[in-house]
Amino acid sequence: MAVFVDRQQLENQLLQSEFHQFLGLELLEATDDHLKLKLPLKELFVTEGNYIHGGILATIIDIAGYFEVQKQFPKPAPTVNLTIDYLRAARREDLYVTAKTVKLGRSVSVVDVTVTNEENKIIAIGRGLFNTKQ
Amino acid sequence: MAVFVDRQQLENQLLQSEFHQFLGLELLEATDDHLKLKLPLKELFVTEGNYIHGGILATIIDIAGYFEVQKQFPKPAPTVNLTIDYLRAARREDLYVTAKTVKLGRSVSVVDVTVTNEENKIIAIGRGLFNTKQ
Amino acid sequence: MAVFVDRQQLENQLLQSEFHQFLGLELLEATDDHLKLKLPLKELFVTEGNYIHGGILATIIDIAGYFEVQKQFPKPAPTVNLTIDYLRAARREDLYVTAKTVKLGRSVSVVDVTVTNEENKIIAIGRGLFNTKQ
Amino acid sequence: MAVFVDRQQLENQLLQSEFHQFLGLELLEATDDHLKLKLPLKELFVTEGNYIHGGILATIIDIAGYFEVQKQFPKPAPTVNLTIDYLRAARREDLYVTAKTVKLGRSVSVVDVTVTNEENKIIAIGRGLFNTKQ
Repeated sequence: MAVFVDRQQLENQLLQSEFHQFLGLELLEATDDHLKLKLPLKELFVTEGNYIHGGILATIIDIAGYFEVQKQFPKPAPTVNLTIDYLRAARREDLYVTAKTVKLGRSVSVVDVTVTNEENKIIAIGRGLFNTKQ
Repeated sequence: MAVFVDRQQLENQLLQSEFHQFLGLELLEATDDHLKLKLPLKELFVTEGNYIHGGILATIIDIAGYFEVQKQFPKPAPTVNLTIDYLRAARREDLYVTAKTVKLGRSVSVVDVTVTNEENKIIAIGRGLFNTKQ
Repeated sequence: MAVFVDRQQLENQLLQSEFHQFLGLELLEATDDHLKLKLPLKELFVTEGNYIHGGILATIIDIAGYFEVQKQFPKPAPTVNLTIDYLRAARREDLYVTAKTVKLGRSVSVVDVTVTNEENKIIAIGRGLFNTKQ
Repeated sequence: MAVFVDRQQLENQLLQSEFHQFLGLELLEATDDHLKLKLPLKELFVTEGNYIHGGILATIIDIAGYFEVQKQFPKPAPTVNLTIDYLRAARREDLYVTAKTVKLGRSVSVVDVTVTNEENKIIAIGRGLFNTKQ
């Protein structure tokens, strides 16, 4: 699995988005094997129930999956389908999101994504399909 | 299917969240049959590709599904699973999100959600499972 | 949305499969709008819990979605992703499965499928993605 | 994660079902960590396209997920939701299906399932939610 985009390019792409800057996302790792982002806590993400909003979790799962594909694919590969399982409430804490490619396909690619907290507990898992039609 | 929460209460709940206020969500309809929210366009939602970020779509699908359940269920019903199909890119436009209960269950409830644009074209569809264990 | 395959051709295709014959599937309707199959009860489908096996439900959802696409698409369109929500146990009863196209896409198509019983109660709902890359 | 059911009991449960006997499923492994079944090839499973029917794959994913939960849970835990990604066509070959618990929850449990062939290539991946409400 070749990496077409280098780390600096990927980081630039990630941070080019005003929305990603607003979220405060950081690129931690982008290796052949996986991609890892960090989402530092913002008070805005926290609901009245004192947990991080499920929409924020869905958003970082989508972004991590997307950039994991982007790492290996020379064109934009829009999300086709996203499935998320919420396993444990995220409290006031930084989050980490790791994406691994399951299959880089000629039509559709599949990526597995895991959101963990500082203690490495799994908060949510997601699976994304991305359009990699050439 | 009884509605336990009245419209004003529901609107208060929806807007109590600083994150929902930030998004700019408006409650349009909350009937026995469905719930409908509006997301007025914000430049922040728009990516460099000139379409609304998939994370924003996932977020409003989660919120609409959650409040559709909340309308009928007297306790918080956290999202268990969310599946989203992205059908068409949303451009610089206001979005509408409509949620309908498929099943209000004793363990898990199922809600169907549709995101449309001003021209009533379907942007994305989602299905959410919510924990309604009593 | 043009129908490329006529009803007789579709029925032949459906029944060409030894596995479909074994299941006992019948083509009830194949209109512009939807496709409907019947699965007459077989004792083999019934588990010790006296309900129809979830694998049988998944199977007929896959088949109905596949032939709904086949109705409109001139090449085989393999299933990419299938999501099923099981809403109510199916007892010793005939089942009906109805598939409707949500989007016929140039890469991926999306179909909604509903399994009902004789009393028109919803047993399961499914959503399938099919590879319609040209 | 305690194993409540011993291997022999689990095998009996699995094979008690006439449908599972018909499929020809074999229990290969049932450890604390995972459950593994084998599905020896039957001509009936093979479509005209010369690959194993997607419904058969969905069925063995459902069964493996279910028994992985059953291994650890003292009551029937019906499937709530099943998501399957089809990655590669299975040819005329024996299949193996491995299930691992992601979370054993008080309401819902999550299991990851992988279908591989004799060469250990991944044919399909699935994720199941099972009702483990006590």
